[in-house]
Amino acid sequence: MFNQLGVIGCGLMGGSFALAMKKAGLVRRVVGYSKSPSTTETARKLGVIDVAAESALLAVSGSDIVLLAVPVAATESTLRAVRHLVDPKVLFMDVGSTKCDVVDAAKRALGKQLPAFVPAHPIAGKESAGVQHADATLYQGRQVILTPLPQTDAALVQKATDVWSALGAQVLKMTPENHDAAFAAVSHLPHLLAFAFFQAVASQPAGRDFLSLAGPGFRDFTRIAASDAAVWRDILMANKTEVLLQSRLFRQALDALEAMMQGGDAAQLEARIRLIAEARANWHMNVPRGASRKDS
Amino acid sequence: MFNQLGVIGCGLMGGSFALAMKKAGLVRRVVGYSKSPSTTETARKLGVIDVAAESALLAVSGSDIVLLAVPVAATESTLRAVRHLVDPKVLFMDVGSTKCDVVDAAKRALGKQLPAFVPAHPIAGKESAGVQHADATLYQGRQVILTPLPQTDAALVQKATDVWSALGAQVLKMTPENHDAAFAAVSHLPHLLAFAFFQAVASQPAGRDFLSLAGPGFRDFTRIAASDAAVWRDILMANKTEVLLQSRLFRQALDALEAMMQGGDAAQLEARIRLIAEARANWHMNVPRGASRKDS
Repeated sequence: MFNQLGVIGCGLMGGSFALAMKKAGLVRRVVGYSKSPSTTETARKLGVIDVAAESALLAVSGSDIVLLAVPVAATESTLRAVRHLVDPKVLFMDVGSTKCDVVDAAKRALGKQLPAFVPAHPIAGKESAGVQHADATLYQGRQVILTPLPQTDAALVQKATDVWSALGAQVLKMTPENHDAAFAAVSHLPHLLAFAFFQAVASQPAGRDFLSLAGPGFRDFTRIAASDAAVWRDILMANKTEVLLQSRLFRQALDALEAMMQGGDAAQLEARIRLIAEARANWHMNVPRGASRKDS
Repeated sequence: MFNQLGVIGCGLMGGSFALAMKKAGLVRRVVGYSKSPSTTETARKLGVIDVAAESALLAVSGSDIVLLAVPVAATESTLRAVRHLVDPKVLFMDVGSTKCDVVDAAKRALGKQLPAFVPAHPIAGKESAGVQHADATLYQGRQVILTPLPQTDAALVQKATDVWSALGAQVLKMTPENHDAAFAAVSHLPHLLAFAFFQAVASQPAGRDFLSLAGPGFRDFTRIAASDAAVWRDILMANKTEVLLQSRLFRQALDALEAMMQGGDAAQLEARIRLIAEARANWHMNVPRGASRKDS
């Protein structure tokens, strides 16, 4: 049981964490801060946070658990603003979708306080950003990746593991480098492709007519193209090298399929699609034991 | 009310049509034929069809409504096999996802009987192919595109419209050419991209590890990569020209986003993503008035 949760960035991720912690009875009160005062006020009115703080530092002050939930490029400046309250008596985590840049920012901003920061990435989200979509069950049945450094305080890593587990998530640990390579492949590139695809369709002269005919396949394929612009600007910039590497692999696979179409090799095309379709049909999203989600 | 529905191709699409027609009380009995006898037998055991026919011709014989639901490349040979039973007293439709090739096949196969064939494309599907996934509500709340030719019997087009409307679908009419251009953009290309993307991830040395970390965004983005191989072989071959044109437009949009990443232009990247995300958030799948689907 924590006495006070400080949330810096009261959006979908931060707000959902606050609601989940309250629902699980893990925290007495939640103090929140967002760069935009109207967001903080909305979060308070919705009951996502109990108290609106006027600065990041005031949200950390008196908190024994802090969640940093801002676009990843804001990590360094935010950590600098609160650095003298970062210590191993406080569990301090982020939720960023990239980890090498977050760890580098933490090294620069925190110096000797670095061991008190536990880098975290919950694999959860929604197409609708904003605190009004915060959801106490967002992390239930999801994976959370921790990327501690050798110098990270082991007791805090354990505490972080316990908190996310109590919210129904499954905790995995890996290096920031392995994390960023994996998520470039399974998350960052698909977002980039969905952005590019939606734009290509919508910007054609007949785009409006085309969009009026699109069905459920299109809907699901492009769901992530509605993601938050500031969040994805930062992710794509921060993990640029790995994302561009994955894009090259994707383009090679696309080239190969198109060559089969152009060469009229229907049998080869069918065989290739069959392998892919079977592999995709046999793939299932990892869900922690005991957890259940309708949509998994 | 029809006396007998003949279904040629007892898969997801044909089976769902049979179940929907029965549920709506629009047909007395259903006779089905599939190339694979075990499929026909499964359809009969599941109650999707009432009688298993031993040939396409026997499925058409005595039917006053016939649905051709085979991969599009099989259209011509199937129509040839049943051509002398195709006449304006029987409503004869297909469900193919491409229409220029189906219409050309019908012209070649049917000759003077061409006016009796109403080309149709219901915008519905599932990631799981096969009659065991047939669903009486598959077409409810969906769009169905009819692409009649100038010579198509107007009374049959009206009858087709009435049938699909009675199943809860919204019927639109357009030319085969406009249909194929639109669906290359909103359906065929996303399938090709999903196939290529899933393969690129899965075939990497670390692919298995990466896949174990993928979350709900990946799940939805790749859902259509599990689609039926024979069906998609035919669609991609039949509508190759339009699909490759759409792929070029997509690659241009992807190139532009990657150039922003590489050039370090975060503000421009954010502005571009914001436009895309807002347009996607404001897009909603067309659903007929009065119809409701949980997943739309």
